[in-house]
Amino acid sequence: MTQPDFHTRRSVAQVEEGTQLAPKFDRDGLLPCITTDAQSGELLMLGWMDADALRRTLCTGEAHYFSRARGCLWHKGASSGLVQQVVEARIDDDQDALWLRVRVAGSGASCHVGYRSCFYRAVPLRAEAGAPLVFTESRKTFEPQEVYGDAPTPTRL
Amino acid sequence: MTQPDFHTRRSVAQVEEGTQLAPKFDRDGLLPCITTDAQSGELLMLGWMDADALRRTLCTGEAHYFSRARGCLWHKGASSGLVQQVVEARIDDDQDALWLRVRVAGSGASCHVGYRSCFYRAVPLRAEAGAPLVFTESRKTFEPQEVYGDAPTPTRL
Repeated sequence: MTQPDFHTRRSVAQVEEGTQLAPKFDRDGLLPCITTDAQSGELLMLGWMDADALRRTLCTGEAHYFSRARGCLWHKGASSGLVQQVVEARIDDDQDALWLRVRVAGSGASCHVGYRSCFYRAVPLRAEAGAPLVFTESRKTFEPQEVYGDAPTPTRL
Repeated sequence: MTQPDFHTRRSVAQVEEGTQLAPKFDRDGLLPCITTDAQSGELLMLGWMDADALRRTLCTGEAHYFSRARGCLWHKGASSGLVQQVVEARIDDDQDALWLRVRVAGSGASCHVGYRSCFYRAVPLRAEAGAPLVFTESRKTFEPQEVYGDAPTPTRL
């Protein structure tokens, strides 16, 4: 696989104003990745990438993440069929966060719980302490049990 | 200040399918926050919140972050005037990431480099190794020197 050159971070001007890709991974070797639907603009998920996942994403045009729950490379959609085709990738000012605009295959969902977006609950503002979250999607796009079977949930307490 | 009740995380069902706010902060006590423009849907920035910043954001309806560069609470817009009024807040499936939809005061910019969005450069896909980033905003909305003076940049190498 051809590897995109990740440049060494040498100066603030280079990182912020330059045209060299010089990503900053955190101390676990990970970079947060925001993924939105390229057509609707809807926020789908926040994932994490290590250098390998980032290289594979940029080389193949399909979103790859690092699964923190399973501790391994995660080709999104490999088990669910909900592959994310990358329409555009962007890096932020200090190059420690990525944004992918994607087209999702199949039902268009990106959330392992079965909703379209992982962000399916609103948090009340200026509310009483303990005010309940409000669901913003009324139904699931798939039943996780049918897609993932008995695979363990990635959610950690 | 009234503090929203953060519930204890007791089960996957409670966290994923319930209506209790039970955020998971990382080992530095931080939670990533994705901030988009409420009207255009454009991704503006990825920030970080500690429990205090999250409480203040939910209580006041103005975005507060934790500045990792300065190591302190950061009321966004306090020095630049570019306050972010929260229109909606959402939490993700496993409650370890937040999404804010905001209206930005003033010029509408959210990036300390002067651009509207922090994500002002596209990363080429399926390109030659080392292919240059492509600027997606043609001009800055403000000159950082005029707004921040000689304040140190938050970007870390």
